[in-house]
Amino acid sequence: MANSWVNSAERIGADLHLELVEAGGRRAALIAALREAVREGRLAPGTRLPPYRSLAADLGVARNTVADAYAELVAEGWLSARQGSGTRVADRAEPLRQAERTPRKTPPRARGPRHDLRQGTPDASAFPRAAWLSSYRRALQQAPNEAFGPGDPAGRIELREALTEYLARARGVRTEPDRIVICSGFAHGLRLLFGGRTVPLPLDEQGARMDRLARERAVLLTPAHQFPTGGPLHAERRAAVVDWARARGGVVVEDDYDGEFRYDRRPVGAVQGLDPERVILLGSISKSLSPAVRLGWMVLPGRYVDGVLAAKGEREAWASVLDQLSLADFIVSGSYDRHVRRMRLRYRSRRDRLVAMLAAHAPHIEVTGVAAGLHAVLRLPPGTERSAVKAADRRGVALDGLAEFRHPAADVAAQDGLVVGYATPSEHAYGAALEALCEVLPPEADKPPRASR
Amino acid sequence: MANSWVNSAERIGADLHLELVEAGGRRAALIAALREAVREGRLAPGTRLPPYRSLAADLGVARNTVADAYAELVAEGWLSARQGSGTRVADRAEPLRQAERTPRKTPPRARGPRHDLRQGTPDASAFPRAAWLSSYRRALQQAPNEAFGPGDPAGRIELREALTEYLARARGVRTEPDRIVICSGFAHGLRLLFGGRTVPLPLDEQGARMDRLARERAVLLTPAHQFPTGGPLHAERRAAVVDWARARGGVVVEDDYDGEFRYDRRPVGAVQGLDPERVILLGSISKSLSPAVRLGWMVLPGRYVDGVLAAKGEREAWASVLDQLSLADFIVSGSYDRHVRRMRLRYRSRRDRLVAMLAAHAPHIEVTGVAAGLHAVLRLPPGTERSAVKAADRRGVALDGLAEFRHPAADVAAQDGLVVGYATPSEHAYGAALEALCEVLPPEADKPPRASR
Repeated sequence: MANSWVNSAERIGADLHLELVEAGGRRAALIAALREAVREGRLAPGTRLPPYRSLAADLGVARNTVADAYAELVAEGWLSARQGSGTRVADRAEPLRQAERTPRKTPPRARGPRHDLRQGTPDASAFPRAAWLSSYRRALQQAPNEAFGPGDPAGRIELREALTEYLARARGVRTEPDRIVICSGFAHGLRLLFGGRTVPLPLDEQGARMDRLARERAVLLTPAHQFPTGGPLHAERRAAVVDWARARGGVVVEDDYDGEFRYDRRPVGAVQGLDPERVILLGSISKSLSPAVRLGWMVLPGRYVDGVLAAKGEREAWASVLDQLSLADFIVSGSYDRHVRRMRLRYRSRRDRLVAMLAAHAPHIEVTGVAAGLHAVLRLPPGTERSAVKAADRRGVALDGLAEFRHPAADVAAQDGLVVGYATPSEHAYGAALEALCEVLPPEADKPPRASR
Repeated sequence: MANSWVNSAERIGADLHLELVEAGGRRAALIAALREAVREGRLAPGTRLPPYRSLAADLGVARNTVADAYAELVAEGWLSARQGSGTRVADRAEPLRQAERTPRKTPPRARGPRHDLRQGTPDASAFPRAAWLSSYRRALQQAPNEAFGPGDPAGRIELREALTEYLARARGVRTEPDRIVICSGFAHGLRLLFGGRTVPLPLDEQGARMDRLARERAVLLTPAHQFPTGGPLHAERRAAVVDWARARGGVVVEDDYDGEFRYDRRPVGAVQGLDPERVILLGSISKSLSPAVRLGWMVLPGRYVDGVLAAKGEREAWASVLDQLSLADFIVSGSYDRHVRRMRLRYRSRRDRLVAMLAAHAPHIEVTGVAAGLHAVLRLPPGTERSAVKAADRRGVALDGLAEFRHPAADVAAQDGLVVGYATPSEHAYGAALEALCEVLPPEADKPPRASR
């Protein structure tokens, strides 16, 4: 950097050697040098600084340069000037170097595992950089000036219009732009809607059991692909939950997290289409495009719009306007459809490889939940989940057991299983991840363990 | 759109005319047509649908196409199928058109005023589109694949490193990348830090009165340019607030909202540099670049980092990773410095025009707080603020009175004044805004009102 120069002074005065890099920067350089000397403790609190004239002569700079620098540092609180006692290092400018170096724990995901089969994220290497940049460029060039000013907490109208059309076409959602609020993703949308206590809803092979709903005020469902077990919600259950909401005045929150990734047939439309006044649909591009863009949407019954906007208000984070405009272009230009199609093929092929690999090497393990989505559930013999997760960890395979997603108050018997995300690895890393996975699966109950490779 | 075709049926059966646009899309078109017919009430709940064979013959499609479409709509809950009673329109699929059309109130800022002199936003027409796009392109091209995966709630390391260097150079901030948490702006950062009650701190001509601090746990200051009155915090006060924090174990929150825009001399460094363990600095690009990008930063004492990251966690909105990488490039490439310099010149010239206009046309109005920042305070005769704000509103001039920013519990006498933001209008609209402003200012107390133009 331009201002990086070395202050090698050990004492003030003649010893405060300053390498003044540029004519215009002498004052700035002197300020920085003095600040650094105070900061590092070379100039101790209370130390009296040399008069302007002496330091100016020592350094070969103008007297005014020194006077200006002192005045600046007095204004900033580093130095103090009192009539008759000259300029001194202020008392409060203590050296703080130890404290400044407190190391912070590295975040859990900073270093990835060798084989990443965690569910919930798309293949980060498949981000469509060129197509996205094209949309971004068009969005930036076409944006009206007001787009760069203070915005609307509902989000940009361009994106809300594009989503209205897209969600109707792709997901059977019935809404209009004024009922959509842009947020940063599913979890952000959920936080804007609710606090409070949650209770588990039991599942069976048709999905969540609506007959167990009682006086709850809201129910959260993943109808397209039950999370984590992976089945679609049965048609009668879809109808039943809307009936419940109507009879009880409740609200259904539909987490449409995997709606675009269905492999055996066309995607099932959103439950929201059945009753837009009783279903809130939350969606995002976190799995279809990337979690890094931080964009999601809330499709709201009309009566909730004002409340959500008030909760979002001024103090809540808003999504980047430029990204919103880019996503609008990305959808309208057809790039989003193309990307989803491409990824659907890729993920289906990965799913097929997973199923084939297990059929060949672990035929006793049942695979479920693979008709849609980005993860599968491997059913394990009773009592083997915990040791399988541990074995995977030792082998460098990151994945979760079903227990990880179990509600603490769930009252049905736990089943053993592994949740295997097949979208996360890059294309070239997937084969090795599958091989490692096969090695850590428990053997058939009545057979001895296989020898490790 | 490809699927946009007209369903002109008035009754089902032979009357359900379908224009099937493309061979491959007949099934999808039939599903959409039936869904629309149910949605619009043309197919009433309970209505029995024609057998596959009849409808297929009427429409000239394959029998399987109809069967598939029915099955899909049963799966989605629009239709219900019972053994022996055929396929019927489900009871819950009521028409909802009235409710869907509830108009939402337009947000307060959706339509701008004729002359916008509100404080707090930069000139939206000055967004550096070309330079920003260059940074975005480089960021997108150079980003590692993992950037498109799940992120670190602290924000991208590239941006935290760029900010560490920039804030040290431009604002005298002492920190390191591990102590910076990226957020969406000042208000978002503040919400992550605090809830709770606030009390006002009195002001005098040297800024906030630190001697009035007592058992409070935190104090929020705008040292570079007091908000809204506009003076810098006096050097002794800067020292005093750090002393208070040390003595009482308190924390100083420094809102560095105008730090880069100082016109009469170089910017005063941040108070944070005096004691990085007791001062939290919050900054953003909302005023220096644009509020639309939604990026800010929190420079934290080491002991707060983990708590802030935990509060941010998974449910909090994160800033767009691509924007973070772009801003990092924008800073490192020097574009940010160039933009701030350019805007500083532009805003200084606007300030000068405001001051000159008032000197010529309203010499009795004192202008204060103009050494820095993007707004000025026009001191008004006692009791005239409210009527001046109203007159401005009638004339199409949006601005705020000082009362707007007064803490409800403030115990010092209110002063009358107008807060005039001179950054918001575009360059060509500024002159007219100034003229309109002059017309709504109250006359000198002892003179009759001027005739309106």
